Amino acid sequence: MTADGAASGGRGRVTITEIARHAGVSVPTVSRVVNGRSDVAPGTRARVEDLLRRHGYRRRAASPGRRAALIDLVFNDLDSPWAVEIIRGVEEVGHAAGVGTVVSAIHGRSGDAREWMRNLRARASDGVVLVTSALDPVLHEELRILGVPLVVVDPAGSPSLDVPTVGAANWAGGLAATQHLLALGHRRIGLIAGPPRLLCSRARLDGYRAALEGAGVTVDERLIVPGDFRAESGCAGCETLLDLADPPTALFAASDQMALGAIEALRRRGRRVPQDMSVVGFDDLPEVRWSSPPLTTVRQPLADMGKLAARTVLRLTRDEQPDAPRVELGTELVIRSSTAPPPTG
Amino acid sequence: MTADGAASGGRGRVTITEIARHAGVSVPTVSRVVNGRSDVAPGTRARVEDLLRRHGYRRRAASPGRRAALIDLVFNDLDSPWAVEIIRGVEEVGHAAGVGTVVSAIHGRSGDAREWMRNLRARASDGVVLVTSALDPVLHEELRILGVPLVVVDPAGSPSLDVPTVGAANWAGGLAATQHLLALGHRRIGLIAGPPRLLCSRARLDGYRAALEGAGVTVDERLIVPGDFRAESGCAGCETLLDLADPPTALFAASDQMALGAIEALRRRGRRVPQDMSVVGFDDLPEVRWSSPPLTTVRQPLADMGKLAARTVLRLTRDEQPDAPRVELGTELVIRSSTAPPPTG
Repeated sequence: MTADGAASGGRGRVTITEIARHAGVSVPTVSRVVNGRSDVAPGTRARVEDLLRRHGYRRRAASPGRRAALIDLVFNDLDSPWAVEIIRGVEEVGHAAGVGTVVSAIHGRSGDAREWMRNLRARASDGVVLVTSALDPVLHEELRILGVPLVVVDPAGSPSLDVPTVGAANWAGGLAATQHLLALGHRRIGLIAGPPRLLCSRARLDGYRAALEGAGVTVDERLIVPGDFRAESGCAGCETLLDLADPPTALFAASDQMALGAIEALRRRGRRVPQDMSVVGFDDLPEVRWSSPPLTTVRQPLADMGKLAARTVLRLTRDEQPDAPRVELGTELVIRSSTAPPPTG
Repeated sequence: MTADGAASGGRGRVTITEIARHAGVSVPTVSRVVNGRSDVAPGTRARVEDLLRRHGYRRRAASPGRRAALIDLVFNDLDSPWAVEIIRGVEEVGHAAGVGTVVSAIHGRSGDAREWMRNLRARASDGVVLVTSALDPVLHEELRILGVPLVVVDPAGSPSLDVPTVGAANWAGGLAATQHLLALGHRRIGLIAGPPRLLCSRARLDGYRAALEGAGVTVDERLIVPGDFRAESGCAGCETLLDLADPPTALFAASDQMALGAIEALRRRGRRVPQDMSVVGFDDLPEVRWSSPPLTTVRQPLADMGKLAARTVLRLTRDEQPDAPRVELGTELVIRSSTAPPPTG
């Protein structure tokens, strides 16, 4: 992207020439700011960025010949076990379209996010797929100003955003997991819940409640314990449930990692899965096919979510509209060896 | 990268102008071929590519201002559980240097590899980190022709390549795993080996033999069973060992996934880990901290290997030399709950 490529605002709102006149700087200087170059004095940059923002400047859509043929895929952290699943989906669609996938982690730190934004401008990426439960409003606004299409992959189910999002059917997943345990004959079913600030946690919990109520089983609030999706919290939550006077015979952990933590807590107490306690997870990470025992879980189609997000962002780069502003892909119960009827007696 | 950016061969060998004259085409046409553009007739492209190859054409190192600020990180497949670890390491170094990490999978298919190569040229990436045990010679040659710096992350330990590689100390890891079991008092120690075509499998096996011989324990060849690094083969290998008239009391699986498969085989037969059988893995994937039981294993520093590869490729883009053509990072035994003294009696 050079000065001429960035020289006019889309939607006829404002041109770089006008911004330059307002800021009292040259057109190439404004262009350097727009394109994230470092050779601009900080004061000048701030003044120009402010004007760009106030005038709602949008970078003109690049002509096909000028496309960078890159999409940016941004995570908060790359230590999540499902990151690679989403990367796989985005990369597959990008590869087929001749578009490279630039993977970044911003660690929820504003410094890293601003650094990433600078790099994004410099490489003139065609679009962004953001994988995070909390969209930084400043980041969001900057992308809007730059006119870079944005799609959010949102396994956590954020409140409505004004950008297209791809999520998963969390409520239906919680329902299916609990119905499976009910069908096996369990009536005392524990839940290790996810972080309450995430809507996906609430949706899975509500699915659990709906299944119990649908089967005429009264929800026992003591059987619902908090977790944070990590294995440690699943281990601790399971111990809390085992310490009850009347512990459950089955539990639904709202993430696979918590399910693995729960299985370890049971092993430490000499309890067998599923003979003494059934365990259902949520995610279907590749590793749970070979947990001991292999985990019954609710499959989140993470690679498919990545694919759909990539396809949507590519459509937006062609000025096409997505099918719907918010899409939830279906979840699916996968039955393996960690669930069985309750122990008799 | 435009025509002028690619207009002369590095190392003074040949220019695009000369190639154009030889091919009987215009300079812009040669430039389009060099830059991977699609608007060139196939016959012309083939003729120009052939000339570029025969003349050992090297793209001139981009001046700092013209850098794409991208490195390509290429996997055979993105379904490997350790891919995300390497991505994390490369991204961290790239991010700090203001360089984006473009992640690709070529699936060992030549079509995908050629497609990737075309995209790499078009985006004029500054360098390539290749994560694969088998380097396609054609790919390698094309990168050489393009003059794009290449570093191979090579957990498998390939035969000597004429590019910098970053590996892990496989032999020392096999030695440490086996010495740990010997120190616990085991004398009959099984090995589930990796694919024999990979040097890393041989190195781990040799480390195992060296430890046994160092302790005066005769190697019993019946205790060495084949595997392919995947969980299924670990499960089958463990069953083979359990079916022996005199089964081992401990086993070393040459990958974490095979160790998880072995633990599942033991669970199915009602054998407890570590009370009835000790199991050591190799890799230290994040997931084995919460296997049941948490796995004693040999840590491969995959993120560090990614970091070193990224640092090396960035040095090469500045025409600096790597410290050494081949580096092996140390492996480390991590003791968790899957190993214990042999059962008494």
